[in-house]
Amino acid sequence: MPEHPPLLPFDLMLAIYLIAIAAEAMSGALAAGRRDMDIFGVAVIAFVTALGGGTLRDVILGNYPIGWTQHPGYVYLVIAAGLVTTLVAPYLHHLRRAFLFLDALGLVAFSLIGCQVALALAYPTVVVIMAGMLTGISGGILRDILCQQVPVVFLKELYASVSLVVCVLFLLLGAAGLPADANSALCFAGGLTLRLLAIRYSWQLPTFSYHRRWD
Amino acid sequence: MPEHPPLLPFDLMLAIYLIAIAAEAMSGALAAGRRDMDIFGVAVIAFVTALGGGTLRDVILGNYPIGWTQHPGYVYLVIAAGLVTTLVAPYLHHLRRAFLFLDALGLVAFSLIGCQVALALAYPTVVVIMAGMLTGISGGILRDILCQQVPVVFLKELYASVSLVVCVLFLLLGAAGLPADANSALCFAGGLTLRLLAIRYSWQLPTFSYHRRWD
Amino acid sequence: MPEHPPLLPFDLMLAIYLIAIAAEAMSGALAAGRRDMDIFGVAVIAFVTALGGGTLRDVILGNYPIGWTQHPGYVYLVIAAGLVTTLVAPYLHHLRRAFLFLDALGLVAFSLIGCQVALALAYPTVVVIMAGMLTGISGGILRDILCQQVPVVFLKELYASVSLVVCVLFLLLGAAGLPADANSALCFAGGLTLRLLAIRYSWQLPTFSYHRRWD
Repeated sequence: MPEHPPLLPFDLMLAIYLIAIAAEAMSGALAAGRRDMDIFGVAVIAFVTALGGGTLRDVILGNYPIGWTQHPGYVYLVIAAGLVTTLVAPYLHHLRRAFLFLDALGLVAFSLIGCQVALALAYPTVVVIMAGMLTGISGGILRDILCQQVPVVFLKELYASVSLVVCVLFLLLGAAGLPADANSALCFAGGLTLRLLAIRYSWQLPTFSYHRRWD
Repeated sequence: MPEHPPLLPFDLMLAIYLIAIAAEAMSGALAAGRRDMDIFGVAVIAFVTALGGGTLRDVILGNYPIGWTQHPGYVYLVIAAGLVTTLVAPYLHHLRRAFLFLDALGLVAFSLIGCQVALALAYPTVVVIMAGMLTGISGGILRDILCQQVPVVFLKELYASVSLVVCVLFLLLGAAGLPADANSALCFAGGLTLRLLAIRYSWQLPTFSYHRRWD
Repeated sequence: MPEHPPLLPFDLMLAIYLIAIAAEAMSGALAAGRRDMDIFGVAVIAFVTALGGGTLRDVILGNYPIGWTQHPGYVYLVIAAGLVTTLVAPYLHHLRRAFLFLDALGLVAFSLIGCQVALALAYPTVVVIMAGMLTGISGGILRDILCQQVPVVFLKELYASVSLVVCVLFLLLGAAGLPADANSALCFAGGLTLRLLAIRYSWQLPTFSYHRRWD
């Protein structure tokens, strides 16, 4: 099972994927820093944030061996990205926009990869969509659980929904006969645009508040 | 591996199972509402609460493909139940008793199904019991972890214990030669009665409090 | 896959392993007591703390059937250890040193076992190390998640790092040609010494604190 199938010209896609897992690892390291963890904890949270989503997808789909176990380089990359973050953290807030952009790249790239893995295993449509979303968003959910906060992906501007839109669009265009490469490129551009607009204009889903006590 | 083996006449059992996962999904949606999540978060928590326990069981038993990946209808049902909950929530406290009854149905039905899955895979007795309990209670535990609360199944009236009693009784009666259908029906009735009595009379297990600091 | 391969003379290794899972189960029970859980919750947390790390390792490596499902005795042992803890808890603080020693035994033994399982499955080096650490430390992480606290393994004296050192040393000495038995014995002694020194002298990794808000 290729970890980074030819969505776009191979080298570009691989570059995007590597940048995306590094960006996810950095977001994990910052969350660990908010909890004053030691550098070992930083490395673990970075790993879980960047590669936990794909791990969960592979476990649920029974897709063994799990991706990163066959690509040791990814493991070194995310740990290095986590540790470097502890050094450059004082400067990172100047890079907030770049960071959000890289994170958006990752969200969309991970979602497309997740869909393709499940498609290759011939799972039903709804499972393909869920595999895409699982890959796209669950690393961040695991990060928030380990760092003791309610998962932000369910609280802020459109995030999980971007993953859903990307996955559904990818399946619809595929069913309509669009070749895989063009389809991936289009979904990639569309998803990225949607996420960036959501950040720019603070688009949110309606929230559900329920605080009645039953006793 | 049938998801809903013939515990009771098939149509009745399927109906109970569908009602139970819808009830679990609703309890997940309400928990998400207590955390002011967006409707996407509501759908995710509903899914995890209703189908997470069976997923965990299948992963631990190596029972691939995982149940819901072969039954897309279940996925749509739990998401729909979660979203409908956001609309009807203002009226739900009037239905508290009905809700607790449906939840009890689910606890017992899930426990029996979990036992049967592990039995069919020829696991040892203690694993069969744990598979039953995992199916019965772990969806609620995952819900509470994602919503940042200590799992209520370990804090309130007999709940996990009902699952244990149902699983042990099912194995004992099976070993005693009771036919599977009669066995399931009996365990179902017994477990449901026990849970409802526990709610009615606030039966609790002894708790363990330990607040000594060692440093 | 042997759960307790011949690191040391077999009977000694088995004894260490059994003591270690009992000690981990006790630490889980105490954590449950800090949350005032009922005795069922105590049993569950004890189980997850003692056998959760190995479970996670086996799931991630695809090493089915999972260890404890083939060794029912381990399940009874950890549940019994958890429940006995609720009875002897008032006296345990007198045993703090013994307890820390048993926990250190467990950390090192679990780490070595995890490495050997992954080695036997021919995974790459970095995966072998992560399998060792996963077995050594993730039971405690799961315990802390279920009991709603930030995982202590990332906050206190050298703990996860001891696991890392043990795993790396084991691989290096193995690559240098040391026979497996001598290697295991040496790594065991070295890891135990390191952990005990870290406790005695409060050795810590540097921590990473990041509390800048970006908004």
